[in-house]
This record gives sequence, structure tokens and C-alpha cells, in this order.
Amino acid sequence: MKVTIRKSERLDIPQIYNMVKQLATYEKEPEAVTATLADYYNDWDAGIFQVLVAEKDNLVVGIAIYYMTYSTWKGKMLYLEDFVVDAIHRQSGIGQLLFDAFLSEAKRLGAKLVKWQVLDWNEPAIRFYEKNAATLENQWMNGKIFFS
Amino acid sequence: MKVTIRKSERLDIPQIYNMVKQLATYEKEPEAVTATLADYYNDWDAGIFQVLVAEKDNLVVGIAIYYMTYSTWKGKMLYLEDFVVDAIHRQSGIGQLLFDAFLSEAKRLGAKLVKWQVLDWNEPAIRFYEKNAATLENQWMNGKIFFS
Repeated sequence: MKVTIRKSERLDIPQIYNMVKQLATYEKEPEAVTATLADYYNDWDAGIFQVLVAEKDNLVVGIAIYYMTYSTWKGKMLYLEDFVVDAIHRQSGIGQLLFDAFLSEAKRLGAKLVKWQVLDWNEPAIRFYEKNAATLENQWMNGKIFFS
Repeated sequence: MKVTIRKSERLDIPQIYNMVKQLATYEKEPEAVTATLADYYNDWDAGIFQVLVAEKDNLVVGIAIYYMTYSTWKGKMLYLEDFVVDAIHRQSGIGQLLFDAFLSEAKRLGAKLVKWQVLDWNEPAIRFYEKNAATLENQWMNGKIFFS
């Protein structure tokens, strides 16, 4: 299996968007995705998020969407917003390749740490992060206000 | 009481840094703040974070530290990383003024939502966010990997 991990190019954006939509459908919330493909083009162009993609046979089979944030206690913190491997390519090591590339990118950018979130019932994901010696915290609540 | 809410200037950075340090001391973790004042200058200059400050009698008495992030489902999302009002100025409405200014800034920047985190035992803060009609979610864990 030849898999390449690389930074996204503009022509990857439709595939990236489709992977996000597929995941939302799998999670039974397809209507929750209100960002459009045009938003993805605009916001990627503006540098609001970056993506590492896993490519196999000229197809995107995994994505790690991230951006730089700030920990007021530690300093620069690279945040992993979305991390998806195509269902038929799971358990193949592609997730670890992507995660390792994300960690390398964080170090290259001078981040002091990386952060992400995981649902507390997502045991395969939690095991993956534990295997990667992550610190997992469960005392925080997310607050959100949506504008409409 | 004359309080001004405004965007931070470079000369506010020492006071902003001190407010973060004071909060960490109050939370009994002063040694956890390893970011230096020099980091704050560099990272503010680089635009990695922005700050709204509440000023009274030429002193900074409250801060809201934020940056743009991305919701893959909704689009642009302004993230409130730190939100502090000086202990002697609490219950005076300054927090609401700062929070309102943060929401206005988010709308001005075209964000589709705002997000932040709150400790699940911090009842006064949770009441404040409920009063602001926020959605609070408790099913997410934070994952972190620190580089040293």
C-alpha cells in the first residue's frame, strides 16, 4: 500500500469537504453541516485552516484539519479540528501516519503543545490517543453561541 | 464608573500577561505558566491572538483573549481562550461588557459561532453563560500532547 501524506492543495478541497460531510452523515447529522464548499474555498484561501491529506491511488483517503491557536499558559498551540480516515481504510496505519505528520508540523511551527477534542464515548479514538501518550481531560465543558 | 472596552495595544501586553499569571496563582498553578512575556510580545505581534481589554482609570481590569478558528460544520468560529476580570471588579458588569464586545467582534469578522471552555465546577461562570443563552456541552474530552 503506497500512501502519501502531504499538505493540501486547492484542488483537494472538494474531497476534503466531502469527507467532512460523509462523517456527519455517518454521525446521523448531515443537516448540521451548513458550511458550503464555497466557504471552504474562501476560508482555506484566507489561511483560516490548513489540512494534511493522506493520498492513495490519487484519492484523498484521510484528512487532518488544523490551525494555530494560543495557550495563555504555554504559548503557541496547534489545534486539530478534524481527523478522519475513510471507513474502508481504517486499521491500516494511515491515521497514525497522519497524526505523526500533524505532530511534526506542530513542532516545525514552534508550537509548545497540540490540542484536540474527542467524544467521551468514542473508545477506539480514545485508545488511539492513549497509545500516543496523550493527556485526556474530562472536566471541561464547551460553550457555544451560534449566530443565525 | 467609567469603563472603556477597546482592542489591546502593544503597551497593554505586560498587564495582560500579569492578569493571566494572577489567575494561575489564584488557581494554585503559578508554575504552569511557562509562556514568557517575550512570547506574548512575539505571538501578539504575529497576530496569533487578539485581546479586548476593559480599562478603568488607565488600568486594565479585564481581558478577553481570542483568535479565529474553524468549525468544519459551520465555518469561521471565533474562540475565546481566556476571559478574566480583576477580582475586585467582579459583579460590576465589566464581564458582560467584555463578552458583548467579543460577540460583536465575532459578528464583524463573519464568524458563524463563538466557542470557549469552562470548568464543570465553575458555577458562577456557568450561570453567566446560561444567562447569555449559550449552548453548554459536556460530552467532549480534551486531548493534549505537550512538547518539552
